[in-house]
Amino acid sequence: MTGNKIQLDKNGNLKHFLTTEGLSKSLIHSIFEHAESFANVGERSVKKVPLLRGKTIANLFFEPSTRTRITFELAAKRLSADILNLNISTSATSKGESLSDTLHNLEAMHCDMFVVRHSNSGAAHYIATQVAPHISIINAGDGRHAHPTQAILDMFTIRRHKKSFENLRVAIVGDILNSRVARSEIHALSTLGVLEIRIIAPQTLIPKDVEKLGVQVFHNMDEGLSGVDVIMMLRLQNERMRGALLPSKHEYFQRYGLTKKRLEKAKPDVIVMHPGPINRGVEIASDVADGEHSVILQQVSHGIAVRMAVMAMIMGRRPKDSNEDS
Amino acid sequence: MTGNKIQLDKNGNLKHFLTTEGLSKSLIHSIFEHAESFANVGERSVKKVPLLRGKTIANLFFEPSTRTRITFELAAKRLSADILNLNISTSATSKGESLSDTLHNLEAMHCDMFVVRHSNSGAAHYIATQVAPHISIINAGDGRHAHPTQAILDMFTIRRHKKSFENLRVAIVGDILNSRVARSEIHALSTLGVLEIRIIAPQTLIPKDVEKLGVQVFHNMDEGLSGVDVIMMLRLQNERMRGALLPSKHEYFQRYGLTKKRLEKAKPDVIVMHPGPINRGVEIASDVADGEHSVILQQVSHGIAVRMAVMAMIMGRRPKDSNEDS
Amino acid sequence: MTGNKIQLDKNGNLKHFLTTEGLSKSLIHSIFEHAESFANVGERSVKKVPLLRGKTIANLFFEPSTRTRITFELAAKRLSADILNLNISTSATSKGESLSDTLHNLEAMHCDMFVVRHSNSGAAHYIATQVAPHISIINAGDGRHAHPTQAILDMFTIRRHKKSFENLRVAIVGDILNSRVARSEIHALSTLGVLEIRIIAPQTLIPKDVEKLGVQVFHNMDEGLSGVDVIMMLRLQNERMRGALLPSKHEYFQRYGLTKKRLEKAKPDVIVMHPGPINRGVEIASDVADGEHSVILQQVSHGIAVRMAVMAMIMGRRPKDSNEDS
Repeated sequence: MTGNKIQLDKNGNLKHFLTTEGLSKSLIHSIFEHAESFANVGERSVKKVPLLRGKTIANLFFEPSTRTRITFELAAKRLSADILNLNISTSATSKGESLSDTLHNLEAMHCDMFVVRHSNSGAAHYIATQVAPHISIINAGDGRHAHPTQAILDMFTIRRHKKSFENLRVAIVGDILNSRVARSEIHALSTLGVLEIRIIAPQTLIPKDVEKLGVQVFHNMDEGLSGVDVIMMLRLQNERMRGALLPSKHEYFQRYGLTKKRLEKAKPDVIVMHPGPINRGVEIASDVADGEHSVILQQVSHGIAVRMAVMAMIMGRRPKDSNEDS
Repeated sequence: MTGNKIQLDKNGNLKHFLTTEGLSKSLIHSIFEHAESFANVGERSVKKVPLLRGKTIANLFFEPSTRTRITFELAAKRLSADILNLNISTSATSKGESLSDTLHNLEAMHCDMFVVRHSNSGAAHYIATQVAPHISIINAGDGRHAHPTQAILDMFTIRRHKKSFENLRVAIVGDILNSRVARSEIHALSTLGVLEIRIIAPQTLIPKDVEKLGVQVFHNMDEGLSGVDVIMMLRLQNERMRGALLPSKHEYFQRYGLTKKRLEKAKPDVIVMHPGPINRGVEIASDVADGEHSVILQQVSHGIAVRMAVMAMIMGRRPKDSNEDS
Repeated sequence: MTGNKIQLDKNGNLKHFLTTEGLSKSLIHSIFEHAESFANVGERSVKKVPLLRGKTIANLFFEPSTRTRITFELAAKRLSADILNLNISTSATSKGESLSDTLHNLEAMHCDMFVVRHSNSGAAHYIATQVAPHISIINAGDGRHAHPTQAILDMFTIRRHKKSFENLRVAIVGDILNSRVARSEIHALSTLGVLEIRIIAPQTLIPKDVEKLGVQVFHNMDEGLSGVDVIMMLRLQNERMRGALLPSKHEYFQRYGLTKKRLEKAKPDVIVMHPGPINRGVEIASDVADGEHSVILQQVSHGIAVRMAVMAMIMGRRPKDSNEDS
């Protein structure tokens, strides 16, 4: 993957945001710092800073995702940018226009940034290689490949609860094979230097050669959760499971669902995470999702702050430039 | 209905806006006063006040209604709020997420207000009981139950034409049974102390025990309209009429359509109202809809002012705080 | 056509923008001047001027066109107006409301301008005759009739490349019969006084009596392109071609596709234009679309500036009024 070469400019600053693979520890910490300064914007009376006033950001969604679209739309609006929502599948391309022509047209309209969601792995990378130099790309999820803002907001959430990453044992549970979130999390956790990354899943949902990523594989939930500081649950995405030899939802929950009883295997101060939307009773029990260890809704709040941070950094703006006048 | 207990905070101020039932006369008059100050905003060169700048309002429409969506969107924009449009039926819930989880996610994104439209009676109330304390709900129509902003804008329109409510005879004509508008209007008219509320409809379109609401029932249009000051026509909603033993549209118009001739039964200065969209030639003749007694388009204008008023009051802002700088 | 009488007020200023037919040379040049001042807004750091702050513009799209909708949405946002997007086909009219009632409702909400796209020729004119005096209409394409902002942005693009219009030979190539763009271009080119307007198409795609518009008709591409300064390609719109006796796409390209070889017939400094979206390999070869003579993407950029100019002129605002404070 050449993502990291593309996403940094020659000074090592973010030009695009495509993947967590190869992203340096210092850059991730820089995103954290920016996000900290935005985290309180959502709690202020006026939830808006004028940092990106007069910028045009386009949500280019080639596969629909209302939830993800909204988080980027809100981040853009709270930075005072203008935002266009384009559902590409139902738009110009239906008139037979090529993707490349659609992109160049949006460039010519002086858009500054495309937030790209696509069902094909590598789509955001490809688009980043096609666009004019003044355009930046944020990958909002591409196939099974990456979902970097989700991974960074997860790291940001861990950081707010745990002093440091160095001593953490982290378990990722569920459909690793099909999960762009898992892939992006594993890269980020590695870079941040956690003590141990465990993945817990049935054999059919684990990618080949996954040990090369520096993770430990568990098929037994109780063993995998033993002594962990962080549990990152994955959504069981029925729509991506075609062909996987998967037992019933009920049986899946019996073997890999996170219950209160299983949670006891982990450290007493374990935090439970999930990228949403959650399937209650499939991968996670309701009382765990809503319980004291859950930080799931904090992840959502942090998602806005982290997306604001990435947008502002790419545009070369620092939060300290901001004030409430616009 | 416990709507009124939910919608007021302990100081008696609007926290949500769910129903006109139980709303005090003084609170309704307070909305009128706020709306008066917004009514001229639409006629100014700069149709915008910065009252809700930096607030986030989400239109949560579980049933589609472009017209209603637009009135709330415009009200929010003219108050300088950021607004998100979510068509929930085609969104996250299709991934199996529960309503409650969708709501909590939007809360975690630091939304301030949900404008809720739903085909189920009681949906807005239910949502108001589910959300976090920092979220306010406006009911934009729930099933057959209530449409309180419509009722208040109707009252506001009456008030602009008639000196006071005390001496008014008001007739509501049409499908009372299925109308959330009628229900909300009856409660508001009662509270404002009009002399007489008449409902005029065929027996099949009148709810049981309607007399308990303090209304007089008429099946004959000419009798019901005799001497009234205000006529509030209802839309004949074919989509809600399944099973009602209704004559043909033509026959309905013959018996309950508002014509110029029938209008002569009312007071000479009668005003004719309709919540729209109107069915010309079904419940109202075109020359009446467009005639000198019609205030139908004024209702639309007042709808923006009243929605701005309710939004601002819920957020604890008074129009006098506003100025044209933003 | 009485378009021009409707679109000018009694002082000769733009009230609506419906057609290029009958538009005076001085008015077109006035649009050019306004557009020049907006052309650099898209290249500024803050791509926004406060000229139309507090105005409400509604995109009324009776036929879908994401590309055109976006250009008007961006123009409105960069002028700081509030914009509503209404897809009318799926909205109020489905409840049986008449077009006229929909329009009057939007008027009552104090909208200032409707951008109208409709599949029926004359729709924008008709709407302009129906609306209240405070509403202005911009025609964003009506059936086979007109697409005036496209034509003016094309003229603006020609003007930026050629010193003057007087000595220009211009060829319009393709489906003249079904093209609102061609019709609007021919009127504008005539008014601006070009030396020669040629249309190049198979007989079946040429309107009857087209010579009355002052154009020369060519069926042979090489002859038609000989010595021209400007080539305006049209999109082959399959969706409008029902019944036209057209050869296959391949054969069409053989006879009327613009290739590098054919381009040699034109002047050495010829510019190649296309309103987009382009059909590569149908009406234009890829290497021509992307080649040194192509100004196709400049047209897109100019489209924003010209639409900002028309919106601002209709609202009676001059760019010099603008500054970056809002």
